[in-house]
Amino acid sequence: MQLDPQWVVGFVDGEGCFHVGINANATMLQGRQVLPEFVVVQHNRDVNVLYALKDYFQCGVVRVNHGDRMAYRVRGFDHLLYKIIPFFEIHKLKTKKRIDFEKFRDIILLMERKTHLTSEGLLKMQKIANQMNTKANKTVDEPKIESSSY
Amino acid sequence: MQLDPQWVVGFVDGEGCFHVGINANATMLQGRQVLPEFVVVQHNRDVNVLYALKDYFQCGVVRVNHGDRMAYRVRGFDHLLYKIIPFFEIHKLKTKKRIDFEKFRDIILLMERKTHLTSEGLLKMQKIANQMNTKANKTVDEPKIESSSY
Repeated sequence: MQLDPQWVVGFVDGEGCFHVGINANATMLQGRQVLPEFVVVQHNRDVNVLYALKDYFQCGVVRVNHGDRMAYRVRGFDHLLYKIIPFFEIHKLKTKKRIDFEKFRDIILLMERKTHLTSEGLLKMQKIANQMNTKANKTVDEPKIESSSY
Repeated sequence: MQLDPQWVVGFVDGEGCFHVGINANATMLQGRQVLPEFVVVQHNRDVNVLYALKDYFQCGVVRVNHGDRMAYRVRGFDHLLYKIIPFFEIHKLKTKKRIDFEKFRDIILLMERKTHLTSEGLLKMQKIANQMNTKANKTVDEPKIESSSY
């Protein structure tokens, strides 16, 4: 299935989610792990569309989300930084999901500067993350953060 | 807001719904009214996107769906026949929603041939309508059919 960039933007405006989990992790310098992810969830009848997104972005994985729902997820930091963010910088989202994307991008850029390795930096990120995916913004299943990264 | 046709397809793949209500109506020849509609529902924070769809298709209305959700709806028969159907015939949906669209189109074309004015025709339409938006297909709020038409 060949995807057009504008189709990808429209579909993500409807079904995509930019999410940052900040979880307790004793092995990390600040006792917290920052886990940004880009997710698109679909009923398994449309798993082909998720594989088409994976092919399009050349990164991420397609796996079971829960029950009969599948998810395309990108968690790899370099994939988010060099593939997902530049795509949505060029091809702007048209819904208010753009605001979530911009906060997501800000957190990734702070991570690139190792800001999450200081307690002030982590607090700053937590504040940004708390403003994302507020109740009014939610249109897809809340993604579950697991400890693995891909 | 300027929309690209592929953005429209991607967004409708995520958020759109093709629905046919067949309701009791004593004033109709067969005691039933066939009410096809194309609907896109969004939280009211993204009502601008619904108005952009209305501008794009040059038909339909944007109104409250329920609570804090708004809906862009096209019910006008000629608008469905001459604007909505040709658009999605040219710009194919990529999800399984395409199957719902094709059944929707089949019902509209039967209506154009006045098939719904005979009991056999009505039965045929009912059979097609029953195969649409089955549980697995549902991704948006079920649209409410009212007796008004626009």
